[in-house]
Amino acid sequence: MKTKFNHYIKNLQDSITQKLADLDGEAHFKEDLWERSGGGGGCTRIIENGGIFEKGGVNISAVHGVLPEQMKAYFNIKSGNFFACGLSLVLHPKNPFIPTVHANWRYFELYDDVGKLKDQWFGGGLDLTPYYLFEEDVRHFHQRCKNACDAHDKELYPLYKKKCDEYFWNGHREEARGVGGLFFDYLRPDPKHSVQDWYNFVTEVGDSFLDAYVPIVERRKSMKFTASQRKWQEIRRGRYVEFNLLHDKGTLFGLKTNGRIESILMSLPPHVQWEYNHQPQENSKEEELLNVLRKPRPWA
Amino acid sequence: MKTKFNHYIKNLQDSITQKLADLDGEAHFKEDLWERSGGGGGCTRIIENGGIFEKGGVNISAVHGVLPEQMKAYFNIKSGNFFACGLSLVLHPKNPFIPTVHANWRYFELYDDVGKLKDQWFGGGLDLTPYYLFEEDVRHFHQRCKNACDAHDKELYPLYKKKCDEYFWNGHREEARGVGGLFFDYLRPDPKHSVQDWYNFVTEVGDSFLDAYVPIVERRKSMKFTASQRKWQEIRRGRYVEFNLLHDKGTLFGLKTNGRIESILMSLPPHVQWEYNHQPQENSKEEELLNVLRKPRPWA
Repeated sequence: MKTKFNHYIKNLQDSITQKLADLDGEAHFKEDLWERSGGGGGCTRIIENGGIFEKGGVNISAVHGVLPEQMKAYFNIKSGNFFACGLSLVLHPKNPFIPTVHANWRYFELYDDVGKLKDQWFGGGLDLTPYYLFEEDVRHFHQRCKNACDAHDKELYPLYKKKCDEYFWNGHREEARGVGGLFFDYLRPDPKHSVQDWYNFVTEVGDSFLDAYVPIVERRKSMKFTASQRKWQEIRRGRYVEFNLLHDKGTLFGLKTNGRIESILMSLPPHVQWEYNHQPQENSKEEELLNVLRKPRPWA
Repeated sequence: MKTKFNHYIKNLQDSITQKLADLDGEAHFKEDLWERSGGGGGCTRIIENGGIFEKGGVNISAVHGVLPEQMKAYFNIKSGNFFACGLSLVLHPKNPFIPTVHANWRYFELYDDVGKLKDQWFGGGLDLTPYYLFEEDVRHFHQRCKNACDAHDKELYPLYKKKCDEYFWNGHREEARGVGGLFFDYLRPDPKHSVQDWYNFVTEVGDSFLDAYVPIVERRKSMKFTASQRKWQEIRRGRYVEFNLLHDKGTLFGLKTNGRIESILMSLPPHVQWEYNHQPQENSKEEELLNVLRKPRPWA
């Protein structure tokens, strides 16, 4: 399974970066290969200052070895070895009418000291962070998420949609980071699902990413925007930074386990503003977005 | 003591904001009064888009009441009441040759359930975050810190200078946030120092703030800077954000104990950039700064 999923994310990185670079038209992805001293490494692909994408990364990694102290504490395990691989992507478009998107799909294996497989699971999801609300875009994104789930089990979408709203909650602001999507973790083999079933599900979600996001980019990329709309985007990007550095378990786990800093923090937006006590005008488009973030809604 | 120190920080807020507004020449401080539902409140004073200060805050608060859950866990106490007051300031100048400065002075009392004083301490310090290194500025700042310490005890400056370098360490980057200053905490009455001794010390440090910082601003405020120097400043401000949201105990404690979000996060800089894997040119002024941040030096 680890070979198969690792192969899958390599191909997915290729197909996603090729499509996004074609879509962007101006910039291409630059690749950094890196190695982890304890075992394994990764391939970071970054796009910057493009026609559409101001900054983004589509990264894969496959790491393995003796469980680091922080992972042992996190999983409450005394000793052992691990394997983990996954793809993480974040795209920050220039145009404030195009939402930021984030996705991650990962697979984890734990072994005992003699190398016997003790635990295995998939995790991941995808979620959308708009700066202005276009309901048709959000419905489209969620419908693609729902279709991918429904092909496997009708119970999955409502469950993982809810988990996504809960996970990407910027508690100190009492608002969501964005309009959600899917979030799932610890998808272990169980009486209803084999590890192959979960592989089929997670790869179906991965395969649906471009369909979920690209049509939104196409619809919004030529819309004109003002300096004040751009400012609102930069202020909202500040909330994105706050979530990632204060609450995101993946980011904090990566930093604590000495992950590659630049690959982890590629998620941070390029230009960001913090203004004291910024409040949108009443009944404005900016307030309309905030109202949705404060009370997550059903979308599909 | 709590009345006396609270009175002191109120006057200090007035004298600092008056001097800084005079220095700025263009903007003035806007005041927000706020109340804490559990008891007490604060006075937040913010300056934005000034001639010198792009964003800054000089805030005081005095809060009290039943110990919130998070504080009980933090102090490992089952129940009781508390009083805390302090002044916090952060100034982000526009000109990248003027350093950002941060300072905080605070006093804490803990009581048992019948209101008997069980513990009391002072904490705080001040520290400088330059974007370009002017050794005379850093020496001046540290000399003012040292003078304030030496007036009370020759052992304090080396101790609190070291604690400052340790505290403002951006561990995931393996570099300091800035060039340090003083950091002290849990200054409790002990055989060598009465609570009045610590009050005398902490207020001496507070009184030395303007002397430590203003001459640096005066020296640098008229220096011309380029767009690329400004960009370096915004990238370094990103490291400031990373420290405050990932590592700063004061910020995280404030957010966890439902402090006033906008008063806490006023510390975040106005315009910030994150660029993937940004590295300064070899032997540049930017690299010179990094070398100092990676290996904190003696300055006084």
